[in-house]
Amino acid sequence: MEKYKELQQKAKLIRKWCLRSTTTAGSGHPTSCLSAADLGAVLFDRYFSYNLEEALNLHNDRFVLSKGHAAPLLYALFGMAGAYPLEETLRLRKFDSRFEGHPTPKFVYAEAATGSLGQGLSVGAGLALLAKREKIDNKTFILLGDGELAEGQVWEAANFCGYHHLDNLIAIADINRLAQSGPTMFGHDLEKYAARFRAFGFEVIEINGHDLKAIDNAFHQAMNSEQGKPIAIIAETIKGKGISFLEDKEGWHGKALDEDQLKKALTELGPTEDQLHFDLKQPNSILLPQHHTKNSSTNLPFNKDQEYATREVFGQAISELGKENNDIYVLDADVKNSTFSLDFLKAIPEHFIECFIAEQNMVSVAAGLSRLGKIPVVATFAAFLTRAADQIRMARVSEANIKFVGSHVGVAIGEDGPSQMGLEDIAMFGTLPDTIIFQPSDAVSTAKLTAKMIDHPGMVYLRTLRSKTPLLYDEKESFEVGGSKVLRSSADDQLTIASSGITVFEALKAADLLKKEGINVRILDCYCISPIDQSSLKKCIIETQYPILITVEDHFAHGGMGDFAISALSSSERILQVRKMAVSHISRSGKMEELLEDAGISASAIAKMVRSLIAVPILP
Amino acid sequence: MEKYKELQQKAKLIRKWCLRSTTTAGSGHPTSCLSAADLGAVLFDRYFSYNLEEALNLHNDRFVLSKGHAAPLLYALFGMAGAYPLEETLRLRKFDSRFEGHPTPKFVYAEAATGSLGQGLSVGAGLALLAKREKIDNKTFILLGDGELAEGQVWEAANFCGYHHLDNLIAIADINRLAQSGPTMFGHDLEKYAARFRAFGFEVIEINGHDLKAIDNAFHQAMNSEQGKPIAIIAETIKGKGISFLEDKEGWHGKALDEDQLKKALTELGPTEDQLHFDLKQPNSILLPQHHTKNSSTNLPFNKDQEYATREVFGQAISELGKENNDIYVLDADVKNSTFSLDFLKAIPEHFIECFIAEQNMVSVAAGLSRLGKIPVVATFAAFLTRAADQIRMARVSEANIKFVGSHVGVAIGEDGPSQMGLEDIAMFGTLPDTIIFQPSDAVSTAKLTAKMIDHPGMVYLRTLRSKTPLLYDEKESFEVGGSKVLRSSADDQLTIASSGITVFEALKAADLLKKEGINVRILDCYCISPIDQSSLKKCIIETQYPILITVEDHFAHGGMGDFAISALSSSERILQVRKMAVSHISRSGKMEELLEDAGISASAIAKMVRSLIAVPILP
Repeated sequence: MEKYKELQQKAKLIRKWCLRSTTTAGSGHPTSCLSAADLGAVLFDRYFSYNLEEALNLHNDRFVLSKGHAAPLLYALFGMAGAYPLEETLRLRKFDSRFEGHPTPKFVYAEAATGSLGQGLSVGAGLALLAKREKIDNKTFILLGDGELAEGQVWEAANFCGYHHLDNLIAIADINRLAQSGPTMFGHDLEKYAARFRAFGFEVIEINGHDLKAIDNAFHQAMNSEQGKPIAIIAETIKGKGISFLEDKEGWHGKALDEDQLKKALTELGPTEDQLHFDLKQPNSILLPQHHTKNSSTNLPFNKDQEYATREVFGQAISELGKENNDIYVLDADVKNSTFSLDFLKAIPEHFIECFIAEQNMVSVAAGLSRLGKIPVVATFAAFLTRAADQIRMARVSEANIKFVGSHVGVAIGEDGPSQMGLEDIAMFGTLPDTIIFQPSDAVSTAKLTAKMIDHPGMVYLRTLRSKTPLLYDEKESFEVGGSKVLRSSADDQLTIASSGITVFEALKAADLLKKEGINVRILDCYCISPIDQSSLKKCIIETQYPILITVEDHFAHGGMGDFAISALSSSERILQVRKMAVSHISRSGKMEELLEDAGISASAIAKMVRSLIAVPILP
Repeated sequence: MEKYKELQQKAKLIRKWCLRSTTTAGSGHPTSCLSAADLGAVLFDRYFSYNLEEALNLHNDRFVLSKGHAAPLLYALFGMAGAYPLEETLRLRKFDSRFEGHPTPKFVYAEAATGSLGQGLSVGAGLALLAKREKIDNKTFILLGDGELAEGQVWEAANFCGYHHLDNLIAIADINRLAQSGPTMFGHDLEKYAARFRAFGFEVIEINGHDLKAIDNAFHQAMNSEQGKPIAIIAETIKGKGISFLEDKEGWHGKALDEDQLKKALTELGPTEDQLHFDLKQPNSILLPQHHTKNSSTNLPFNKDQEYATREVFGQAISELGKENNDIYVLDADVKNSTFSLDFLKAIPEHFIECFIAEQNMVSVAAGLSRLGKIPVVATFAAFLTRAADQIRMARVSEANIKFVGSHVGVAIGEDGPSQMGLEDIAMFGTLPDTIIFQPSDAVSTAKLTAKMIDHPGMVYLRTLRSKTPLLYDEKESFEVGGSKVLRSSADDQLTIASSGITVFEALKAADLLKKEGINVRILDCYCISPIDQSSLKKCIIETQYPILITVEDHFAHGGMGDFAISALSSSERILQVRKMAVSHISRSGKMEELLEDAGISASAIAKMVRSLIAVPILP
């Protein structure tokens, strides 16, 4: 086929650069690149429409490399498209290079950081759904490996794509038969994969992934399909294709060739036409994400005599904010009536995304939305956010601007029992660098912090409560990242109690009990758990009779607010004792009051702790 | 059908108790129980074989309630089987009751704690695979809801069941059309679910889930199938079935009836024959899990002049232990050549379970194995254990005795970049109550701690290193839960550096640098991160010139070893300063040395920190 000769040369060039860059790096996954080189060549040569000057142009097509270990292929493709000289890809995996071992935001053409497998189809689904919602006429391509098709998230994503009829999405599965440590589950039995994608609502095209004409026809069919379905191109490929001593061989995953092997490989590849490149198709126009001015506020009236659940106020606040700010999208996993994101669905249905019970996909879809400048708000039970811990981690690596809302936190949820209690969430979010954690305890602070959350650039976690709580603050009060509020204070405070969320009310009750005994304590509402208000904590320690801090929280003992507080004070210059009151065993079903008592974080437990501490003289 | 009249009465009785118990509790999910009442009645009346005296009898059939919110159904079924008086289920959701809101180990007949959806099929797969491996002739039944079929883990599990031809497993999908916050994705379109299960290798039987004869026939077919496949019974049901004002109605999920509504419902149900019960079929024999004596040790020879990667030593050690201890099973997610669990596969293939790239299913399969007394060892990259954070959390609620091994930790892995770096793992495991965390730094401690891990009852996490490290310890040294080792010590130590894993070697290098400057420091190897060695830490603080502790670790700053150490010392009685050195930003590709430097946890960074601290006089 004369027509495909030049294309074949281009694919050869891709192979050369993937081999060279990995050998120069001394590590990497060349064979995983080689299996998909032909697929990539046809896509970039004939179908992919992209303006390299504006990676975020909304009219660009999108290319998500779900099999992130094939990063050198991604780098070769964009290099051959003219984004940078291909020689530069020889800096692969170097400390100061944008060409990292797996794609990260340092490479501006990466739609997301990948490398934890099985997340790319969800990111692509987010990009494709957004294009549908915002009436953008482009295509989203996702290159998947066969090994990662065992990841459940892929099927969450496939389900989502099928349900939403994302016919602007084209998944390309590189079925090269070999995974890292051995053969995949189904080898070259393409029908296994085809049947699955079909069952999940895809139009499926099966091809030989090294037959350029077949690939061309497949993309042509995919681009012009009118079935209203997402499309999966299932391509039978050979790992290491093009180099005989690598082809279909076990033991070559994640191994770079040494210099001698490279020489041998390049000799076999033969002479390349190094001037060849891709002339990318150009989108018709440029449209960049428009950001709304960021000084969000809400205007919700609260009645001083009434109690409100903070989750309920979140629902109202985000709905109000969504009316002013077109960037906000809210995602749900079938708990919208519990998180109160239902209010947003009612107010702005076109910006609400029902993800059903599939939290992993929900988070990576949000990462896709964030990539194009949206502010996705992901709300579910705090306990169920742990289902997406890896996706949240990768979203952070992607520098995604996602807002997470976790409701039903702590043992305070009561009768539903331990499976539904969010008790690890502060640790999970707190561990990720620069992630803000808010836990408001009343309606006013919730409304204000919901607005702050939207304005803050970067990942924020808002922890909401199941039960109703009384108002603590006047509507004029302001709440800041890194702030806290002193709720009780006197000239003769004995020590300080730092609390947050539901335990604020336990601390206040304890203070009332103690006051009757003539003991004054200072109460701090740490509504911002990370970063915690170091200066206020230090001030309290200095001003109180004893340099003692009690932290009390409805979270497991390790990794929670207490650790943030202790850490912030660990270089304090005054003798300091800290007592961390938190949940230290698996809880159970029961009434909220019983469970707070059982966990040792009730008002009476706090009062008892205070009495025991001030009874014993502290060493000078 | 005369034949089914009594059965119908039994189903009615189930409904009555589910309604009564939830109303008495004032909360719960009666309508989710009612849709599956007929399925449960037929199963328990005619097929389920179980000795109630010995819940762990290996010859019992197993029943996993994946839709854990239908707990009252589970309690009614076992009550009607005679496990306890049904009146007792009226203590549902009470603080001191075994009948929790969602099943937990307090209910001895629960195969696992459920309530985070989509995990039951994996647990069942673990139980069924074990039966296959150990040649036990029983059946595993799993009751799934339709909402949870959107969870990717269900498809990881289905894939696993199909791949392993688990024809002793029968999944029952209760397709009641309504999820928590609205209709499910596919309503009563049974074919959607049927096509999926078929594509994943199941034999599918579609029925009306309220037609007792059809249910009976379906179970009969399932029990006698010879297709060599797992079986899925897809049952069309009505949420709230049996009570007209609840049937197929939105807005009734997770709501108990009030007293008036209950009265109305029971009137509609009509008179019940309260003496009816299930005469469970009895297994032919009793076989209880046999536990091997627990004083594990290995006898691996290490050469003093050689370096070893701790991950490599883990592989050798677990293989040796597996030869002595029949309870050990090792599970992999296609990284066995990197974690070195490959050694175990080679040594004891019949106790190795390849789960392919599906970490969530792997962990819940392990929970199934643990239920029947096995000691499952789950090994993958530490970063990818976060993929199963929710399953690990639920395994902990299940009191599962799983051993987790996470390799490739920290920025020290180098060129592969941030997606592959385990930097949240200590926080994740450390947050779960009573979970032991080991991080050995050399071959000797790895071998010994691998044995300790097996012997310790309960969850243990072993953190292994990618790169080789020199020997630190003599083979006679012992290592304990809660222990640490002093590696450098002198009469005039200025302060203490607590390190673990790779940073032990950075701390030692720093000590060498400082010694040349006349500065002695004490070096602690905290090979047990949780519980951390509080008494040794306190001792160091007292014995050194300055009461200063530096913690240095290859983990994100929050939730790691540093926080364990600070916490342990937070009630210390001497003036104390702690400096936590850890990773505080997302890392990148590069050489190990570059990345340790970049993260501020290198030898030079430690030395610099020491110099700065002892240069400044500390306040008395």
